[in-house]
Amino acid sequence: MKPTFSLRLRIFNLNCWAIPYLSKHRGDRMKRLGDFLNMESFDLALLEEVWSEQDFQYLRQKLLPTYPAAHYFSSGVIGSGLCVFSKHPIQEFTQHVYTLNGYPYMIHHGDWFCGKAVGLLVLHLSGLVLNVYVTHLHAEYNRQKDIYLTHRVAQAWELAQFIHHTSKKADVVLLCGDLNLHPKDLGCRLLKEWTGLHDAYLETQDFKGSEEGCTMLPENCYVNQRELEPFPFGIRIDYVLYKAVSGFYISCKTLRTTTGRDPHSGTPLSDHEALMATLCVRHIPPQHTPSPTHGLAERSRLVSILKEAWIELDLGVAQARWWTTFAGYVIGLGLLLLALLCALAAGGGVREVAILLWTPSVGLLLGAGAVYIFHMQEAKGLSGARAELQHVLGRAREAQDLGLESQPALLLGQQEGDGTEEQ
Amino acid sequence: MKPTFSLRLRIFNLNCWAIPYLSKHRGDRMKRLGDFLNMESFDLALLEEVWSEQDFQYLRQKLLPTYPAAHYFSSGVIGSGLCVFSKHPIQEFTQHVYTLNGYPYMIHHGDWFCGKAVGLLVLHLSGLVLNVYVTHLHAEYNRQKDIYLTHRVAQAWELAQFIHHTSKKADVVLLCGDLNLHPKDLGCRLLKEWTGLHDAYLETQDFKGSEEGCTMLPENCYVNQRELEPFPFGIRIDYVLYKAVSGFYISCKTLRTTTGRDPHSGTPLSDHEALMATLCVRHIPPQHTPSPTHGLAERSRLVSILKEAWIELDLGVAQARWWTTFAGYVIGLGLLLLALLCALAAGGGVREVAILLWTPSVGLLLGAGAVYIFHMQEAKGLSGARAELQHVLGRAREAQDLGLESQPALLLGQQEGDGTEEQ
Repeated sequence: MKPTFSLRLRIFNLNCWAIPYLSKHRGDRMKRLGDFLNMESFDLALLEEVWSEQDFQYLRQKLLPTYPAAHYFSSGVIGSGLCVFSKHPIQEFTQHVYTLNGYPYMIHHGDWFCGKAVGLLVLHLSGLVLNVYVTHLHAEYNRQKDIYLTHRVAQAWELAQFIHHTSKKADVVLLCGDLNLHPKDLGCRLLKEWTGLHDAYLETQDFKGSEEGCTMLPENCYVNQRELEPFPFGIRIDYVLYKAVSGFYISCKTLRTTTGRDPHSGTPLSDHEALMATLCVRHIPPQHTPSPTHGLAERSRLVSILKEAWIELDLGVAQARWWTTFAGYVIGLGLLLLALLCALAAGGGVREVAILLWTPSVGLLLGAGAVYIFHMQEAKGLSGARAELQHVLGRAREAQDLGLESQPALLLGQQEGDGTEEQ
Repeated sequence: MKPTFSLRLRIFNLNCWAIPYLSKHRGDRMKRLGDFLNMESFDLALLEEVWSEQDFQYLRQKLLPTYPAAHYFSSGVIGSGLCVFSKHPIQEFTQHVYTLNGYPYMIHHGDWFCGKAVGLLVLHLSGLVLNVYVTHLHAEYNRQKDIYLTHRVAQAWELAQFIHHTSKKADVVLLCGDLNLHPKDLGCRLLKEWTGLHDAYLETQDFKGSEEGCTMLPENCYVNQRELEPFPFGIRIDYVLYKAVSGFYISCKTLRTTTGRDPHSGTPLSDHEALMATLCVRHIPPQHTPSPTHGLAERSRLVSILKEAWIELDLGVAQARWWTTFAGYVIGLGLLLLALLCALAAGGGVREVAILLWTPSVGLLLGAGAVYIFHMQEAKGLSGARAELQHVLGRAREAQDLGLESQPALLLGQQEGDGTEEQ
């Protein structure tokens, strides 16, 4: 690789809000999105909420000359809604479906059926290994009483761990998507602090677009205005995050967002705003590679975020266990009721009533059984994530006791040598 | 690292068959397993089918002086049953739960409830990065008519991809576990060919133990003799697999298995046999690092295995879609029946019969709905894995057309440079 190596990457990200039968002007918006992507000719276009594979196939055909490589990440009952179009060949791809993703009985919210996931693409560009991640986390339906908070924190941790473990040999890491997290939310801080990813909106010198970089705006005609009432400028929940891992330097030259309107037809491309980033990757000659410095402040910030996340997951485990116990009692009660009904039916007297009540009792039993199984699974999933956090926290505390300076680096497995038998 | 660097690793693996209330002599076997592990003082002990976390906690307490680090991988409703005890500090761990793992309505088989997964541990030993994977794939209940074959192939692919993407910076990779795959089964060949892992039993010069390295033996008193009838020596489904990735050479000095009996008390430790391997890792000075050579034969073997797996998954997708369609028809029929019953109940005449039939109809509807959702999810999961295989196959064919020699290396992402805009 030449020492003057420099690579410019133009990235597009959009949550397309393309739900068959439900999303307004879906066909027209898909068509205009395709035209726009063809016209702009980005290096990578990462899309979320493309729920119908027919829409993906339509875009694939339309974008084929400009974006020869494309992939749809299949998962869940409906989704995952994630897809990607690339100007450059995709070397490898894989996906990781989140262990926890809402509740199947919250049918009106539907997230459980989507199989929310993170998709990974590996690209080799002029000798540079680029790991691109695209994701969509669980939606937030009520910020005051958010019953999905724990699941979203667990997803953010799973996402951070997946990126951490799969990007160890990458030169550049890029994460785009709808995180359904505000910049200061626990999940967002956890993700950024654990992976070391930088936020394009905060880093760029040249931003043009919506006020405060928001990606859901009140002026967008598809947005539910009531939901955005507490946020006069809108909310920022879609992100372009990046980092360079080794010997490279990455910066965001420009960041643009759409602003809730389309200059031509008047209706926007989606209920979310699109993000368009121009990233520049440069090679740092070995003698100029800055050694990572991690101060006390950075370390204690990481530790406090890890603690906060641990507490959140611990609460979630307790709640999931409460539901399991409750469902267990209902199962016991249902069995008792069934035995009583069988005895009544055999004895005569209120025989017909007993037979009539038999099937609802079986229904109750099966329902409670399903709730039991689901929340047991939830408790196990949350315990798994909590154990990982606990381990990282334990190591952070050990290091604090030893007074080590470079804790985040050590925690992230960049330091070696524990001493074992060597012959 | 010294050029004469050499590391000896003693590994223990056992599927413990520790199902609360069901497995015979569980408490006694756990106690003896703990004593044995303490006595032998392995570097790593990897266990499967430790279904109760109480058993894990018991072992943890017992093994604490010899194995200060331990972890249980939590997932599913019951499991995952995977745990690990290590003499050396564990730097990092994470887990990946398989997308597909049997059917929830096959309650008597129970695999769906276990949340089968792969656990990853990262250890740093004298500057060497060791990635250890422990797993347990879906059981095989009927080899002649194996309804779980597709799921097991999909799991093997997911496992291979997880190892491939998370071990890129590891020096040594180790995979232990109960794969529920015979050595020549498609899943086993796919896993070995895609990851490049070597089989300790086939590689070692010094093997002592069961005939043909089998890990389920007819002479083991806990084994269902009828199931092993077609295999007079038993079957080999538990493995120690390994590879060195960069600048290191790994070999299996010795491999031992238990032989279905315990020399002292007479009853074995489990229905599976334990594997005990001594691995030796040596440093290869840069000038002696052999360049990987991948010939035509190797390439065409990989392509043919990938094709075979693709066909298997494609059959699985078709079958899952058939079930979805079937459940869809049943849902339609159930709705029709419900409407008819409502009309009859309103009209009089056979009113009581109509009311009586109402609840079973609702039950039928809900049941069919659950089957629909489950198989839809199955089809999406299998499609995801099939798309990954399709991509790899496509690239293999492209390379064949170009007449490239080092295809597996290229497919595994070891070759760089595609040509993109460079300024």
